[in-house]
Amino acid sequence: MSDLPKRVRIREVGPREGFQFEKGAISLADKVSLVDALSDTGVGTIEFTSFVSPKWVPQMADAEQVVAGIRRAPGVAYEAIWLNEAGLERAARLRDVLALRPMFSVAASDTFMRKNTNCSVEERLAELPGWAERYRALGMDWLDVGVMAAFGCNYEGDVEPRRVVTVLQQVEQRASACGARLGGIGLADTMGWANPREVKRLVGAVRERWPEARLKLHLHDTRALAIANAVAALELGVDCFDSAVAGMGGCPFAAHKGAAGNVTTEDLVFLCQELGIATGIDLDRMIAAGQLAERVVGHPLPGKLKSGGNLATYRATSRAART
Amino acid sequence: MSDLPKRVRIREVGPREGFQFEKGAISLADKVSLVDALSDTGVGTIEFTSFVSPKWVPQMADAEQVVAGIRRAPGVAYEAIWLNEAGLERAARLRDVLALRPMFSVAASDTFMRKNTNCSVEERLAELPGWAERYRALGMDWLDVGVMAAFGCNYEGDVEPRRVVTVLQQVEQRASACGARLGGIGLADTMGWANPREVKRLVGAVRERWPEARLKLHLHDTRALAIANAVAALELGVDCFDSAVAGMGGCPFAAHKGAAGNVTTEDLVFLCQELGIATGIDLDRMIAAGQLAERVVGHPLPGKLKSGGNLATYRATSRAART
Repeated sequence: MSDLPKRVRIREVGPREGFQFEKGAISLADKVSLVDALSDTGVGTIEFTSFVSPKWVPQMADAEQVVAGIRRAPGVAYEAIWLNEAGLERAARLRDVLALRPMFSVAASDTFMRKNTNCSVEERLAELPGWAERYRALGMDWLDVGVMAAFGCNYEGDVEPRRVVTVLQQVEQRASACGARLGGIGLADTMGWANPREVKRLVGAVRERWPEARLKLHLHDTRALAIANAVAALELGVDCFDSAVAGMGGCPFAAHKGAAGNVTTEDLVFLCQELGIATGIDLDRMIAAGQLAERVVGHPLPGKLKSGGNLATYRATSRAART
Repeated sequence: MSDLPKRVRIREVGPREGFQFEKGAISLADKVSLVDALSDTGVGTIEFTSFVSPKWVPQMADAEQVVAGIRRAPGVAYEAIWLNEAGLERAARLRDVLALRPMFSVAASDTFMRKNTNCSVEERLAELPGWAERYRALGMDWLDVGVMAAFGCNYEGDVEPRRVVTVLQQVEQRASACGARLGGIGLADTMGWANPREVKRLVGAVRERWPEARLKLHLHDTRALAIANAVAALELGVDCFDSAVAGMGGCPFAAHKGAAGNVTTEDLVFLCQELGIATGIDLDRMIAAGQLAERVVGHPLPGKLKSGGNLATYRATSRAART
């Protein structure tokens, strides 16, 4: 377990990924209550809504109301996402409340890019200067780059690490041409193609080219390997992960092929606890938030700790029994 | 991914673990249909019933009928378990059909041993000569030892590797005193306490003392780490695992604390496929068996591949699309 980091930073993305996925309407009060419960766990970042067109994603039409409704805990960054200029403008109007991040996302698969965002990779790259300019106007002179489908794509098959490196190099060139820096690099296993060996290959390849960049992994558990993939990344010292409370963001029991959620936050926190890695998160509170998430969506969610329970509790009980 | 084995042997234990767990009655026909579906997957061993008292485990009262009902596929070992002499006698009467194994199980936790089998570890060890004699009468002069709670126990807390080694040494001494050999060694994470680091520690400690013994891991997914634990074992060359189709054997959505099933067979087979490790199992057929298991029990089961789908299918489609 060679290069385990001492501490990892977990970005909670369950509300943002999960609420948009649910077929049934989730009330504003329920959304707010889940974000509030997450605020009490010690997690540092909560990505909780999207500023997207209510025509396409009606579940997120109440984004502004959710922002207005949540209780803001000290030390927590409240983040949201946007996909176009109108979305960024909505978010920017709330910047006294929201933590804005200069996101720029691109896929390592042209077909996925077209299916997901209706533009090619080249067209997305052509939009980069506009994004860099908008972010600079908001005081941010770098780009946090997210690479979707970084391990494989249901349309194009396996994605080789050199393809991801090439896309990142293109981003870096375009960014530096307009005076923006490359900030963090997020590698997303959007469709559940990663395995521990490929995680090590891709992290290794990206690290070799950008040794100083902060890497973040975004791992979906579509094919049961998310936690094992997180272990592989931890063993290379990766110290930032997206995760979703209770595993929100997909329903493995429905016919949504490949639609499983992100790695479950409380399960990932438990893994870190057992490996002696600090997260700053109170596992019992995160388990309670996972149980709340399940009540809010009204159907079983895949996370395990919310039924398995925290070993720390059993350790305390067994210690007490011995003394 | 240092010492990955080229091939692993998977023992399917879903029917044995799963049927006894279900609250609702499962019909004989459904039990037979699931075992028959598993027989067509290429799996080498199917542990599918228990010869236990129908008073305590009514779900297994039809053990003989299931044995009579299944279609026996060539090359598949059909195994069952027993907990006492009466059970072994019932199994031995069917030995032209069943593959008998000289099982001897003991816990690394005295409290768990008492709660689970109503005898202490010392009392269980005292029964060893009787078992060795019964097995010898059936032509088997060795013992396959299973250590329950090998990583931790809800009553006693963490279990140190040296405790497991001590228990195994005691078994070996008693066995050799009555002329029996130590055969395979099974390490069971009965209550979901293992993590990748502890898997490496325990496998290392047992290997150091018994370098030639065939190790088998039995990993429950109570706390989401079963696949990551399997990866850790594979990295040390462990090449035998119990697993349960669809993750049968527990219901993480009910209030059964710590009751999650064994690592899911089709998810483990998928992991092996992605790491280039042969299992001899047709993943698509195992996925279909997992879907059947879910229909048979009548509620969602935790395995992921049955909804996520085999990447081999996507690879073939994307290759075809390119040509």
